[in-house]
Amino acid sequence: MTLSVDLSNILEQRVECGVSEEELDDVDGELRSNHDELREKDPGFLTVPEDVDVDAVEALADDLRNDFTSLVNVGIGGSALGGRTLVEALAPDADVYFVDNADPSLLADVVDEVELADTVFVVVSKSGSTAETVANYRVVRELLQHEGLDPRRHSVAVTGNPDAFDVSRVVEFPDVPGRYSALSVVGLLPAAFAGVDVEAVVEGARDGMTRCRKPSLHDNPGYALAAASYVLGERGFDVSVMMPYSERLEAFAEWYAQLYAESLGKERERGRYGLTPVRALGTTDQHSLLQLLVDGPRDKQVTFVDAPAREDFDVPGDDYLAGASLDGLREVELEATRTSLTESDVPNVRLSIDLVEEDVGELLYTYMVAVAAVAELAGVDAYGQPGVEHGKELARDMLESGGVHSEGTLFGL
Amino acid sequence: MTLSVDLSNILEQRVECGVSEEELDDVDGELRSNHDELREKDPGFLTVPEDVDVDAVEALADDLRNDFTSLVNVGIGGSALGGRTLVEALAPDADVYFVDNADPSLLADVVDEVELADTVFVVVSKSGSTAETVANYRVVRELLQHEGLDPRRHSVAVTGNPDAFDVSRVVEFPDVPGRYSALSVVGLLPAAFAGVDVEAVVEGARDGMTRCRKPSLHDNPGYALAAASYVLGERGFDVSVMMPYSERLEAFAEWYAQLYAESLGKERERGRYGLTPVRALGTTDQHSLLQLLVDGPRDKQVTFVDAPAREDFDVPGDDYLAGASLDGLREVELEATRTSLTESDVPNVRLSIDLVEEDVGELLYTYMVAVAAVAELAGVDAYGQPGVEHGKELARDMLESGGVHSEGTLFGL
Repeated sequence: MTLSVDLSNILEQRVECGVSEEELDDVDGELRSNHDELREKDPGFLTVPEDVDVDAVEALADDLRNDFTSLVNVGIGGSALGGRTLVEALAPDADVYFVDNADPSLLADVVDEVELADTVFVVVSKSGSTAETVANYRVVRELLQHEGLDPRRHSVAVTGNPDAFDVSRVVEFPDVPGRYSALSVVGLLPAAFAGVDVEAVVEGARDGMTRCRKPSLHDNPGYALAAASYVLGERGFDVSVMMPYSERLEAFAEWYAQLYAESLGKERERGRYGLTPVRALGTTDQHSLLQLLVDGPRDKQVTFVDAPAREDFDVPGDDYLAGASLDGLREVELEATRTSLTESDVPNVRLSIDLVEEDVGELLYTYMVAVAAVAELAGVDAYGQPGVEHGKELARDMLESGGVHSEGTLFGL
Repeated sequence: MTLSVDLSNILEQRVECGVSEEELDDVDGELRSNHDELREKDPGFLTVPEDVDVDAVEALADDLRNDFTSLVNVGIGGSALGGRTLVEALAPDADVYFVDNADPSLLADVVDEVELADTVFVVVSKSGSTAETVANYRVVRELLQHEGLDPRRHSVAVTGNPDAFDVSRVVEFPDVPGRYSALSVVGLLPAAFAGVDVEAVVEGARDGMTRCRKPSLHDNPGYALAAASYVLGERGFDVSVMMPYSERLEAFAEWYAQLYAESLGKERERGRYGLTPVRALGTTDQHSLLQLLVDGPRDKQVTFVDAPAREDFDVPGDDYLAGASLDGLREVELEATRTSLTESDVPNVRLSIDLVEEDVGELLYTYMVAVAAVAELAGVDAYGQPGVEHGKELARDMLESGGVHSEGTLFGL
């Protein structure tokens, strides 16, 4: 199987305020006319599946697996989420960990879990100066030294600033924004160490390239997803709920949230833009968010991702559950929730994949194309993140001046 | 320390479109006039910290710990999130697991992790008929039998339907809606088994009761939070981002999302209502959602929860990070992000707690009062979830008729 997309339930035949044939044609025309510009603006991610040196990634991963049994990825945001997505989807039991928070309890947990002597730390930062990553990595070096271990031997850096870290091996961070790096060495190295067949991931991404090179939403799944996101957003469905029905795709929903939030949440001349990503998990969040989706404000579009589990159990009994399996129940709940939302006029999209390397690679590639295409339609720059710079400066100022300063409390209890 | 709330950055002195003194007085008047009605409508949760039999919970937990080393909670939504929140915040290393999804890979993971012979399964369902819970529990029974173990001996049920499960011990599910059950036996039993001092949790909740019994937002932190949520929601800030700066409070953000989404997402005569909860995690999601919060549409209110980590590491170096610790960096990043959002006119609230039993108990109690108060202000029923019934019926119909049926595809690729 490959990735399939079903947009039926965004159409006016199915939901109130749905999309008409005419509007689909209009947005298809816009996508076609933006097609070349999108490719011209590409900062490099479109060709990553062709450019990436998979053999080198696999050779490095093999090398590291000869010397180490655990890998800890020290990186945050785009320097963590691609790898986490691949590992959780495809090798969830691997001894691969992600330290992606300044909260010291995360590093403490990971250090408790691994044997330092058998662990390689992959420090990932394009600039080489991300505060959380630098701080965590410095602590890691001290912990290694304290155990009599050589920090250089236990460290690999993936960075665009080769002088930033004193490590035994430096790998070049590719020239793409962090959130578009999942299919490069940034995402593939931890995955390969975890035992994921990264060649197959990249093959799937190449299938995605072939499909997403087409200029029309009728052939290009990235453009089809972009059209749904954008047109629905324009009519007020600007909260985008990503709801995989798979425990293995929780990290994918986080990756998606970063990709959509950072790429689309922008100021532009004709006003602010953005689709608000909400992460959900089926069937669990049927018991959490569903009530709001059904009866709350009509500002949500929902994307279901169906991914059959790799294991299953039969459910015994002599009632309505008889003959079902747990995974069959998961599937039925997805369809029932989808139908129920459609009947309540909540537009929704259904994606299907198998939890195999090729499909996950295609899924990630397709969404990167989708978000770039939404950005073209909306007239925003998909690749910067200017809004976060001021906070970084404030943090640095506070650290240099010795600690927290705030404006004081006007109203507290 | 106890829980403290800082509402300064929702005020018009700090942010554009902020709240004026006059509006605060108005909403305070409404809260005062709703005060008795809120208490009359209470389905029982307001007095849980006084009603709950902590000794019985502790005695049962001790009993179970004599016979078992691991506990698996089989329940979903309100039958899982309270316990998960307490365990993750206060005893994150405990051998306590939550099976809260029909996805069989979750059950498979948990069964791989534990020794069945040393494991007690706590099946939690108020109705006794929640599909995911019933299905998972039936599979568990078969797995136990297959190992030559007695399912009854390995099972406790927490349910309002004592005939639903064939177990050695039945505990009454209290007469409160699931999402308001965190401080009852439902949330406390797994926490007590995990080693959490549940007496102290309940003591903290009782402090919350004392403060939240006051009729004014100037004294009652639940009402203060409700006023912020409601007034900001009314002026279009209806996406509520819950952003704890603590790995230990990720489950709390999920608990909050359920509480807000299910309690407030309702149809009412004067139109649909709801605040859309978005879960975030600091510092991690500064590298994911922050760009959208700063530059995207002005429809978000943000709640920061500051909770210092219980462990810490010094960060070596001779640059701006010198002298900082990881937890100091976490704290500085919180303040810097808060300041940056305020300067960008994104209204925000700051909550502070310590990661101790009393404060977490008070936090949960205070938010239950907050959501009930928002419901009163908005004119919605905080306690039902009528919107999810239709999906449940559809799922049952599909299972009875042998599988998935959908309307077919109008537009797919």
